[in-house]
Formats: sequence, structure tokens, C-alpha cells
Amino acid sequence: MLRIQTQDRVLLGPGPSSVYPEVLKAMATPLVGHLDPYFLEVMTDMQSKLRRVFQTENELTLAMSGTGSAGMETVFVNLLEPGDKVLIGICGVFGERMKDVAERCGAEVITVRADWGESIAPEQVEAVLRSTNGITAVALVHAETSTGVRQPLEEISRLTHEYGALFIVDAVTSLGGIPVEIDRLDIDACYSGTQKCLGAPPGLAPVTLNNAALERVRSRKTKVQSWYLDLNMVANYWGQERFYHHTAPISMVFALHEALSLLLDEGLENSFARHARNGELLQQGLESMGLELFAAQGYRLPELTSVVFPDRYDEGQLRKRLLDEYNIEVGAGLGPLKGKAWRIGLMGHSSSLANVTLLLQAMTELMGE
Amino acid sequence: MLRIQTQDRVLLGPGPSSVYPEVLKAMATPLVGHLDPYFLEVMTDMQSKLRRVFQTENELTLAMSGTGSAGMETVFVNLLEPGDKVLIGICGVFGERMKDVAERCGAEVITVRADWGESIAPEQVEAVLRSTNGITAVALVHAETSTGVRQPLEEISRLTHEYGALFIVDAVTSLGGIPVEIDRLDIDACYSGTQKCLGAPPGLAPVTLNNAALERVRSRKTKVQSWYLDLNMVANYWGQERFYHHTAPISMVFALHEALSLLLDEGLENSFARHARNGELLQQGLESMGLELFAAQGYRLPELTSVVFPDRYDEGQLRKRLLDEYNIEVGAGLGPLKGKAWRIGLMGHSSSLANVTLLLQAMTELMGE
Repeated sequence: MLRIQTQDRVLLGPGPSSVYPEVLKAMATPLVGHLDPYFLEVMTDMQSKLRRVFQTENELTLAMSGTGSAGMETVFVNLLEPGDKVLIGICGVFGERMKDVAERCGAEVITVRADWGESIAPEQVEAVLRSTNGITAVALVHAETSTGVRQPLEEISRLTHEYGALFIVDAVTSLGGIPVEIDRLDIDACYSGTQKCLGAPPGLAPVTLNNAALERVRSRKTKVQSWYLDLNMVANYWGQERFYHHTAPISMVFALHEALSLLLDEGLENSFARHARNGELLQQGLESMGLELFAAQGYRLPELTSVVFPDRYDEGQLRKRLLDEYNIEVGAGLGPLKGKAWRIGLMGHSSSLANVTLLLQAMTELMGE
Repeated sequence: MLRIQTQDRVLLGPGPSSVYPEVLKAMATPLVGHLDPYFLEVMTDMQSKLRRVFQTENELTLAMSGTGSAGMETVFVNLLEPGDKVLIGICGVFGERMKDVAERCGAEVITVRADWGESIAPEQVEAVLRSTNGITAVALVHAETSTGVRQPLEEISRLTHEYGALFIVDAVTSLGGIPVEIDRLDIDACYSGTQKCLGAPPGLAPVTLNNAALERVRSRKTKVQSWYLDLNMVANYWGQERFYHHTAPISMVFALHEALSLLLDEGLENSFARHARNGELLQQGLESMGLELFAAQGYRLPELTSVVFPDRYDEGQLRKRLLDEYNIEVGAGLGPLKGKAWRIGLMGHSSSLANVTLLLQAMTELMGE
């Protein structure tokens, strides 16, 4: 009979990453009720920690009760109404997902695209903003998990606001790994996940909205189509009112609180430096082995690296052996990278010199045979 | 600095209930990836366990990545299309919630109502089915958490199918505590939560659909409005295909798997008998103290009891002292019961003779002062 047992995996895929032992311990804490004074204190404290990690003073900063994709859906269903025009930048799987989610809100989706491996250029966004009236929001993926590309945000944020639109950013794979500067970059709405650079298990979606975004939610003409993700109600539970909405996933809140404590103990800047250093080491090591990095130079994420294998290698076979023999998980390529590339994550607790060393050595052994 | 620490609460509210220690241990298991062969094995095994607990052979039996309310939303957004007529029975908060969720799907909601404390009568449902053409679905709450009422299902299921509609049941507070016989009662779609009689933390929503319901999902004219809860896609991840949809909340799946293992080790019938016995003891004890049970006799849930205090007691003060001094949580009354009643849960691991004894004695002490 199958029971839950430790598998001892080293998680170097696109997420989940390995969870901090302290976070696992927090997960095992006996429960309290979702209206328990202690739990409300944990929620309030977690919100203040989330604000520090998002580098924002946004009051509406909380964790939705679902995974990162629920965070994406939260932002779109709350900000968009049927007929709204939204401009989405697509250069990978998660941009495509945004489009699907936005269309299900009844929005008219206009896209700008870049090749996989590239980022969206400000000029592309400006051209659409100039030629199309009444765009409600511009949405971009900060760290495209399907390619390992970092999307520059500053100039596009400026353009978006120049044309009176809201700026939406997907920070699922960036938060905690590279700076996500909500206030400095004037990002109006942003969502993330817990299982990437925060080092917690998947199951919550940190979300933050500034006053401009919140004003839009408050002044909707139609009800938010999702009851579960309706920020008008969810915010009343996280806010002073503490109105019951749904039962919060208590253990996941404990886990995320602990993960944020660890991140802030380390220091945001130290965490960014650690991710940068280990990512650089990995990428240098892969290139030294003669492998090609897929993401365009200058736009590579330290926490997620896509690496292409020459045709003579069977990446699927190598990946299976890496898991079976070394207990190391890496991710398969998606879309045009399927069967050709790996996606290697060095996120949160998984981003360590030991893991880089182990992986490069294991790859050397497997590929040398 | 606030850190996560055990509070040692005895959880006797309307959920979450106290979690089995084995389940807490499972939560602390280091993670594996969401496509790891071991995790896929756990998912498959969990589905088979869920089928046994739901007493069904439905292939589409899985756990959605959200709390019970996400289960509710899953069933409604997948089964309903704009303009569909749905008949909803309302005699408490969760029937009202169904109405709100269904309306957000663009459905035309017809309601039948019973007083709080009562259940919906088959005659009420039949009258609407007879007088209204083209009702797509009839939806009821099996165990109304706001009142402690058990809703009989068998006759209403028969009527629903006689008129060609689908039968939807909310089993959030019933699953594992009283029989939820999906196949025998011909329930077409059902959802539950993990934090009630299953003894796991909140965070997943078990859902099961039979072929008639699934056929309706497959033959929709419009896309499901929620990407996150779209069963067409979610089922492809839980099915043979294993198509990536979103990252499953790994630790919560571990927890639910362990909770289901414990329930099946105990035996469904034994669990029902335990819940029945402890509920009966509590209800007798409360009546012996001169308190009034709110739910109509013959329709009382063993796992959730609403009890009304005479005016001379300040229930809020008593409830606060119960928590502060005895570390026992019970729930406040909702709606017409606000400020007048408690909701006492004896669910899952919380349903024990020791807890009944402790609570009755603590109440005697507090009320006798």
C-alpha cells in the first residue's frame, strides 16, 4: 500500500524548488482556526513581510488561496470587464496563458510577440499603445519560465502609464530571485507563486495591487466572474473587517510566513546576489561543456536557465537517468524546446553552490558516456 | 518577531478540524516535482482512495487546487453556461453562496428556500421542476455548515433525473462524516473540502463527476470562464495524458493522501459510526444542560451541531473564554444565529469521546459561574 515517503530529490527544475527545512517544519505545525487571533496576527505579519519582498507599500498585498496560476486569474478577473482591451506580451508559455485567461474574462486581447528566447521591446508596446485607443492594461511576464528570459519592465511601465493603462506583471518566477520593485517601477498589479524563489511549497499566490488598480476593481460595472477570487471580498477578510469569505489554507500560510521570514533574515539583496552568483556559475559551466544557452545574452535569468543539447544527445534519456541515478530533477523543454532542451532552476533553497557543482558533475558524467 | 509556533488548540468549530498527526507529518515531507513518477503514483492512488470515500466509480474524481469553495466554483463554472437555468435549495449560508457563484456564471438561478434549521422538501423541488421548463441542474448542500442540518438527497435525486436535470451536491462538511453515496444516489457532480471530516488541512477540494456531468462539460458551447478550474484541462493532468496545467500543491496532496489512507484504514463505516456516536453524545449533553439544539430533530448532523444560548448568556464572551482559558475553538453563529448560538464541530480527528467530555465539562464550568 502506497504511503507518503521522502524521495530525497534535489529539485532543479522550473519549480517547485526544494523547500527550506524550516518551512517544512512550519507546515507540520498543528492547525489553528482561520479566525483564531493568532492566525489573524500571522496573516497581518505575513502581509507586511510580503510588502517588503514586493518592495511596495500597497495595502492590498495578500496571498490568494491557490497556486501561481490562480494569482494570474485573480489579477485578470478583477481588473478586466467584458469588452476591455488588454495588451499582452507573448514570448513563451506564460504569456500565452495570460491571453487565454484574459479572453475568458471577455476581454479583447491584443498581442505583441517576440521569438522564444527574446524579450518584448518597448517599441513594440508603444506602437500598439499609439495606434489603439482605450487600452485598459498592458501585461507582461517578468521571468518567462518556459525560456529563462528576463523581461525589462521600466521603460514599458513608463509607456503604459503615459497612455493611461494599468501595468500588470507576472512575477511567479522572479519574486525573491531578482528584484521585483513594485513601487519604484509603478507596477499596478502583480502576482507570484510560492514554489519558486521563495522556497515554499506550491499552494498560495502572493498578489499586490496599488490604489489605481484597486480603484478599478472597486468601480467595476459587473461582478467579478469568480466568487473564489473576488478581491472585493477576499480583501475584506485580509483587511480590518475580517469578514469570513472562505477557509484560508492555514498550513500553507504558515509555510509562506516562515519562507518570507527566512528570506528577510537573509536579506533581499543577499538573496538576489546568491541567485545571481549561482546562476552565473551554472551558465558558465554549461557553456564550458559546449552547450548552448537558449535565452538571449543580457536577458538571462539567474534562477532559470534553458540549455539546448546538440542533436547527438537524447535529452529525455539523460533527464531520466539524472532523476533515476542521481535523484536530481530538471525540467523538460516546452514548445519549440521540447525534446531539445532542459530548463534548470536554481531557485530559493535550491540555489546553492553545492547544487551547481553536483549538477554540472552529474551532467559531465552522463554526457561523457 | 512573530514566528510560527504551536498553539495547541482543540479545534471544535465548523472547520478546520484538528489534523491527524500522521497528516501533519506527511505535510512535512520534502517535495518532489509535480511530474515526478512518484508524485504521479501518489495522485493515481489518491484518486482511487477518493473514489472509495465518495463511494463511486467515477473516473473523473480528483482534487482541485483550492479550498472547498473552489470545489463549488469548479462544479458550477464547468456545468453551467450563460442562460442555463439552475434550481438551488437555500436554507443557510452555503446555499446562498451557490446562488452567488451560479449567477456569476451567467446562469438564471431559481431558488427554493426552507427556514434556517430545516431542510429542503422534495415537494418544493418537484413543484419548480414541474412548472419550469429546461432546468439544467438542481443543487443542494448535503450538510449545511451554518445550521448543522442534514439534507436528505435520495428523493430529490430521483425527481431531478425524472425531469432530466443534473444533480449537484455540496459535500464539504459531509464527506467522511456521514455517507456520501455518489453512485447509489445518482449524484452527477459533487465537491468537498479537506479540513472537515477528512482531518487534513484546508487547501484542496475533492471533486467527482459522473459521465452525464462530464458529457455536459465536454459538449459546452462556450469556454469554461475559469482557466484555473477548467476541468477539460485539469482532467488531462490527472488522466493518462499528464498534460501540464498548473503546478499541483504537492504538500497538500501528500496530506490528503495520508488523511484518506487513515480514513480507509479505520473503515468508512467505522468513521460514520464514530461521528454518529460522538455527535449523539454531545447533543444529549447540551440538551441535558438545558440548551436548545437549533437544527430540526431527525435532520441533525452528528459532525456539526448548532446550539442556542438563552438570552442571559453572552455567547461571545463564553466563546472567548473557552478559547483563552481552555484553548478550545468553537464557531460563532452566522446569519440569524449571530450572537445567539455556537456551531460545534466534531469532525475527523476532532470527533472523539475525549473532546466531547472536555467541551461539555468546560461549558459547564464557564456557564455555571
